[in-house]
Amino acid sequence: MRPFGGTRRLFDAMKVAVDHAPDELRLALIKAHPDLANKTQRAAGLTVESTAEQDSVGLDRLSEREYQAFERVNNAYRTKFGFPYIVCVRRHTKDSILRDFGRRLPNDATAEMRTSIAEICRIAALRLDQAVVGDDRLPVHGRLSTHVLDTHSGKPAAGIAFELIELAEFGEARVVARGVTNSDGRTDQPLIAGRPVPIGRYELNFFVGKYFAERGVAMSDPPFLDQIPLRFCVSEPEGHLHVPLLVTPWSYATYRGS
Amino acid sequence: MRPFGGTRRLFDAMKVAVDHAPDELRLALIKAHPDLANKTQRAAGLTVESTAEQDSVGLDRLSEREYQAFERVNNAYRTKFGFPYIVCVRRHTKDSILRDFGRRLPNDATAEMRTSIAEICRIAALRLDQAVVGDDRLPVHGRLSTHVLDTHSGKPAAGIAFELIELAEFGEARVVARGVTNSDGRTDQPLIAGRPVPIGRYELNFFVGKYFAERGVAMSDPPFLDQIPLRFCVSEPEGHLHVPLLVTPWSYATYRGS
Amino acid sequence: MRPFGGTRRLFDAMKVAVDHAPDELRLALIKAHPDLANKTQRAAGLTVESTAEQDSVGLDRLSEREYQAFERVNNAYRTKFGFPYIVCVRRHTKDSILRDFGRRLPNDATAEMRTSIAEICRIAALRLDQAVVGDDRLPVHGRLSTHVLDTHSGKPAAGIAFELIELAEFGEARVVARGVTNSDGRTDQPLIAGRPVPIGRYELNFFVGKYFAERGVAMSDPPFLDQIPLRFCVSEPEGHLHVPLLVTPWSYATYRGS
Amino acid sequence: MRPFGGTRRLFDAMKVAVDHAPDELRLALIKAHPDLANKTQRAAGLTVESTAEQDSVGLDRLSEREYQAFERVNNAYRTKFGFPYIVCVRRHTKDSILRDFGRRLPNDATAEMRTSIAEICRIAALRLDQAVVGDDRLPVHGRLSTHVLDTHSGKPAAGIAFELIELAEFGEARVVARGVTNSDGRTDQPLIAGRPVPIGRYELNFFVGKYFAERGVAMSDPPFLDQIPLRFCVSEPEGHLHVPLLVTPWSYATYRGS
Repeated sequence: MRPFGGTRRLFDAMKVAVDHAPDELRLALIKAHPDLANKTQRAAGLTVESTAEQDSVGLDRLSEREYQAFERVNNAYRTKFGFPYIVCVRRHTKDSILRDFGRRLPNDATAEMRTSIAEICRIAALRLDQAVVGDDRLPVHGRLSTHVLDTHSGKPAAGIAFELIELAEFGEARVVARGVTNSDGRTDQPLIAGRPVPIGRYELNFFVGKYFAERGVAMSDPPFLDQIPLRFCVSEPEGHLHVPLLVTPWSYATYRGS
Repeated sequence: MRPFGGTRRLFDAMKVAVDHAPDELRLALIKAHPDLANKTQRAAGLTVESTAEQDSVGLDRLSEREYQAFERVNNAYRTKFGFPYIVCVRRHTKDSILRDFGRRLPNDATAEMRTSIAEICRIAALRLDQAVVGDDRLPVHGRLSTHVLDTHSGKPAAGIAFELIELAEFGEARVVARGVTNSDGRTDQPLIAGRPVPIGRYELNFFVGKYFAERGVAMSDPPFLDQIPLRFCVSEPEGHLHVPLLVTPWSYATYRGS
Repeated sequence: MRPFGGTRRLFDAMKVAVDHAPDELRLALIKAHPDLANKTQRAAGLTVESTAEQDSVGLDRLSEREYQAFERVNNAYRTKFGFPYIVCVRRHTKDSILRDFGRRLPNDATAEMRTSIAEICRIAALRLDQAVVGDDRLPVHGRLSTHVLDTHSGKPAAGIAFELIELAEFGEARVVARGVTNSDGRTDQPLIAGRPVPIGRYELNFFVGKYFAERGVAMSDPPFLDQIPLRFCVSEPEGHLHVPLLVTPWSYATYRGS
Repeated sequence: MRPFGGTRRLFDAMKVAVDHAPDELRLALIKAHPDLANKTQRAAGLTVESTAEQDSVGLDRLSEREYQAFERVNNAYRTKFGFPYIVCVRRHTKDSILRDFGRRLPNDATAEMRTSIAEICRIAALRLDQAVVGDDRLPVHGRLSTHVLDTHSGKPAAGIAFELIELAEFGEARVVARGVTNSDGRTDQPLIAGRPVPIGRYELNFFVGKYFAERGVAMSDPPFLDQIPLRFCVSEPEGHLHVPLLVTPWSYATYRGS
C-alpha cells in the first residue's frame, strides 16, 4: 500500500488491517505477546521493543513480592481467557497496571479481545512514532508541566528547587524529575514530554522555605511553609497537564491548568 | 505570700522568686532536673510530672537509635555546661528538641543558665495550669484548627475525612488526630487545644476524592485530586493556628489563618 | 389562645389562622395592603410600620422616573389581579422588587393569592420580631460579614478601609456600610445583621493600596492593586453570607464563606 | 552615518546625537514641541504624528472642563520653565498625564530638561518603530493578556464574555476591548499589544454568571457571582502583564502573572 501520505495514514492502514482480520488471526496476534514481567520469558529473550517498554515502567526491577504479584495477574488472566494480559505499559505505572487488570478480569472474552487489540494498537502507535519520521506525528505524546508564581513579590519564582515523584501503593515511590525553576518560574523542558504521561499518582514537591529565606523574606522559625507537596493523579497519558503553584510564605494554591 | 489574686499573680510571684534567687540556688534548681529520655533515671523513678511530660513527646518509646541520640545530646551538653539540658518538652516534638539542642550547645554558660531558667518557668507554668483552678488562666495553651470550604458547591465541606500527622526527620511520623469534618466544614473540637501545639512539622491530609465521588461530582479517573496533603510547620506553641482548605475537584488553596 | 409558648408558637398560630381563613377573608387581608411607593396613599397616611418598611428600601426617596416605574407596576398588577402587588420589602432592594414583579405578573390569580399571603406572613414575622420579646426569635435575620487575610505577611489585615455598596440597575448605587477592619481583620459588627440582608447586587470595596503602602511593602507605582471590588449577589436574606478577601499586593481571592 | 546595523543602532545614534548636542540646541528641540491638547495649535495644524499621538490618548475629544484642565497644566508648566510640558502620551492615559505633571512641576529646570529629552526620545523611539522596518525592533511594545480557568470543571473557560475598561478619575471611563474567550480560555489576540500599554487604572470584567448558567451549573438566584470586575493598574507600559481569572460559581482568584 506504500507510499503512505504521512504517519497517521500509515497507522490508520495498520489499524484497518487488524480490525478487518479474521478472528483467528487477531487471536494469534494477541497470543504472540509476552507476559508482563515474566522472568522466564525475559531470560529466553523478548524483542528489543518489548524489553524497553517493560523496563520503562520498572518491570525489570521488581522486588520478589512484586514479581509474584504480576505472576498471579498473568496466570489469573491467562487461565480465564486463554491469552496473555496485554496492556500498553508505556501509558502506565505499576499501580495503574494492577488497577487496569482488576477492572478487566471480570469482563467476558469478547470484550477482552477488543480491549487487547486496542492496547496492541496503542503499543504499535508508540513504536511507529519512534520508528517513522514523517511530516505529521501520531497524537501519542502527553505533557506535564509546572509554573511557580511568587505572589509575595508579584514575579515568577525563579530558582525554586523541585522534584517530581511517582507515588506507588505497590512498590516504592521514585523520583522521576528534579530541577530548579528558570527565570520565568518554569522549567526549560516540561517535566514529562515526548512520551505518554503514565497514568498514576504523583507528588510535585517545591522547596519554598529555602527560596524565600534566600530572598530575605520575613518568616517564622521554622518557616510555616517549607516543602510544599502537590499530590495529583494523571488520567490522560496523551493530555497536556499543567500543575502550577501560586505561593507566598503563608499561602499557596494550585489547580489543573492547561 | 498567699492568697494570690489569680493564677497569673501566683506564677509571677514564683518567677520573681526564681529570678531574684542567688546564682547557686538557681544552679541547684537547674541541676535538680533529670536528663531527657534517660533510661536509668526513668528506671530509678522520675516525678509523675516529669514522666508524663517526657511521655507526651514520645520520649518513653524511643528506638534504640533514638535513645542513643538523646544520650549523646545529654552527655555533650552536661560535659560542656555541668548541668543537664533542660527544655519544656510539652512545647516540642523530638525533631524540634534536637534542633533546639543544636542551637543552644554553642552558647556560653551564662546564656544557657538564663535559657534553662526560662524553660523551667515554662515547665512550671504548664504544671501550675494543671494544678490550680483560678478565675484566670496562664496563656500556655495554643490551638490548631482547620476548616474545609467546598468551592465547587459553595458550601462548607461536611463529611471530609482527614488525619493530622506529626512528621519526623528523627524517628517515625505519627498520626495525632483523625476525624471527619462536621456540617460546618470544621471539626467539633480543634485538632489540638488545651495544651501547647508542639513546635514541629505537620501534614494535614484530606481525603477529597472520596468526598466528591460520594456527591456524584464529575471527575477524571483516577481523580485529579484524591488525597490532599497540607504540610506546614508550627513555630508558636501558644498561638492560634488555623489551616483551612478551599477545594474543588480541580484546585485547592490553603493559607495561615487566625 | 394566649399565652403562647414563645414567639414562634405565636407566629405559627397566626399563620394557621390565616391559612385556614375563608378565601374572602384572605382576599380582604390582601386588599387591605397599600401600594408600593404610592405618593397619594403616603400623603393620606400609611401605618407607621408600612411607612418604615417602604422607607427601608428607599421607596420614600424615589426619583420621578422611579415613582412612575413603580406606579406602572402597581397598576399593571392591580389591573390583572384586582388586588395590590404585595412583597415583603425589607427582604429586597428596588432592583429585586422589580425583578420579583416581572416574575409574578405572568402567574394566575390563585398562585398570586398564595404568594401574596406568603409575603404578608413574612411581613408579619418581621413586625412580630420587632414587637415581641420572647425566649426564642423567629429566623428572620440574616448576616453579611467579611474578613481580610493579608497573605503577604501571614496575618489578619488590620486597618483596611472598606465600603459596602448596594448596586442598582434601577436608580443609584448607595453606600450601606463603611469602616476599617479591626485587629483580627474583621469588622466589630457584621456588615449587615439583625435584619434580612436584602436580595440584590453588592460591591465590597477594599482599599488595599493604601494599606500596603502604609506598611512599607514594595509595590509598583501606581500599585498593581489599589482598590479591590468584590461584586456579589445576595439570594437568601435570612442566610449567613461571609465574603472574605485573601490578599497580597499582587494577588487576591474571595469565596462564598459561611 | 548610514547604513545602520538595525533599528536599535539607528535609535542609539539618534540618542547619542541628542545627548551630546549643546544645551541651546536641546532647548530648541524641546521648544519645538506643541502643547498637549491645545485647541489653537491643533487648529493651526500639528504634524501628522503629533496629532495621531494626542488622539490616541483622547486629547482630541476632551470635554470643555478637560480642555481647561490641560490648559492650566500647560500654562503653569510653561510659566515656570519657559518651555512646553512634554510627555510621551502613547505611554499614558489622561489620568496618568495629569499625575505625571503633578510630580514634575515641583522639579527644577535642569531636571525637567533631562526629563523632557527622555520623553522626546521615547516619542522618537515609537515613531521610529512605526517608520522603519529592520531585523530588530525597539523594545517599545507592551502586552496585556488574560486567561480564564474554570476550576469548577477543571478546564479552560471557553466562551466567557469580557470587556476591558480604562478607568478615569478625570473624564469618563471607556471600553478599550471587548470579546469572548476562545477554546483555551484565552483571547486570540492579547487585549493590548503592538504598542505601549498606557499607564493607568483598568477594569477587566468577566460575565461569569451567564457562562455558568449556559453550562447548567447549579447556582443561587440571582447567582452569587455574575459579573466579576478585576481592577488593576498598569505601571510598566513596555512590560508583559498577564491578569488571569480562576473561577467557580462561588469563588475566584486573580494574580499578576507574566
